[in-house]
Amino acid sequence: MSRGQFITLEGIEGAGKSTVASYAAEFLTGQGITVRLTREPGGTPLAERVRRIVLERGTEHVSAVTETLLMFAARALHVDNVIGPALRAGEWVVCDRFTDATRAYQGSGRGVDPMLIDSLARAVHPQLLPDCTLLLDLPVAAGLARARDRAGGAADRFEAEDPSFFERVRAGYLALASREPHRVHVVNAAAPLSEVQRQVAAILARLPRS
Amino acid sequence: MSRGQFITLEGIEGAGKSTVASYAAEFLTGQGITVRLTREPGGTPLAERVRRIVLERGTEHVSAVTETLLMFAARALHVDNVIGPALRAGEWVVCDRFTDATRAYQGSGRGVDPMLIDSLARAVHPQLLPDCTLLLDLPVAAGLARARDRAGGAADRFEAEDPSFFERVRAGYLALASREPHRVHVVNAAAPLSEVQRQVAAILARLPRS
Repeated sequence: MSRGQFITLEGIEGAGKSTVASYAAEFLTGQGITVRLTREPGGTPLAERVRRIVLERGTEHVSAVTETLLMFAARALHVDNVIGPALRAGEWVVCDRFTDATRAYQGSGRGVDPMLIDSLARAVHPQLLPDCTLLLDLPVAAGLARARDRAGGAADRFEAEDPSFFERVRAGYLALASREPHRVHVVNAAAPLSEVQRQVAAILARLPRS
Repeated sequence: MSRGQFITLEGIEGAGKSTVASYAAEFLTGQGITVRLTREPGGTPLAERVRRIVLERGTEHVSAVTETLLMFAARALHVDNVIGPALRAGEWVVCDRFTDATRAYQGSGRGVDPMLIDSLARAVHPQLLPDCTLLLDLPVAAGLARARDRAGGAADRFEAEDPSFFERVRAGYLALASREPHRVHVVNAAAPLSEVQRQVAAILARLPRS
């Protein structure tokens, strides 16, 4: 059995990743593909516990390096226990965020050394790169307004950051897309949902079937 | 105010680290030194939560790399929130395990790339090395017998390892001591407690006072 395709969704807060992830899973399922829909940080019971440590806003200082290590620890659990086994079983995996998020948020957003992120990526998933990454791009102000509407006022450690942080994250994502245009597809997430879905379907339809 | 001394205790299971750590803290306190006694993994509320994720024996696969990342995430929290502030305030810190434990357990014991451990150590504590490390050394069989008596049958993920794992860990520790003899002091932990305490007191008495 051939390995399934590994599809990741990326973008800033309010870009609509989880909605589009569900749509992508539904679209592929409709084509007879077995799909595993998952998300980061999290995706396994232990990784969800790590996720809570990362996202809680407490009094303890959590540095950008600490955040990066926790993200990769959760990712290692996720790759070893869910993503890797599913792909080897021939399933396609649709994952809301992966290592590109660490490059954008902790790297571009918080200034963590890209060399450290590279060495962690090599250690945690040496042979696993997404086959296709959908970067849902939209202006920061529009994304934050959507995220605030959704959260109803409550914000986690990331959502509480100021707009300049998200500008750096967005620029980091766009830089990744320009470096790897064959893998990272920029989707205009400011468009109406039906148009976003049309763009996503067109990209997914081009992926190789086994 | 000058920075306090940073003293770490290392050794395999059953070497008597926590007993000796308490003794070391008491000895130094008796000399008028303000001492912070702490331990790894753990030492802060969030780091203790990471510790539980590392030590629990569950059904989820936790790889050696995952373990290493969780250990360094807990260490980063500990350094940023406890060890660093205490040392800068002039306190001496006595810490049950630090990065040498990761080199011995995850590196020598489980085969994690020493280059990865080096790059994590540089990222997490670029300017912090122990001033003095007490390596409590004893034969593996003797250590495991003591640890089993203490645990009363319950074993965590490390204590459940077989003797050959601990032989590699012990050899890893002794190799560190031979590479850094001025920092890492080998204490014969198979000796009676009074003799161990005499050895430890002699080493601590030679540390520079501010």
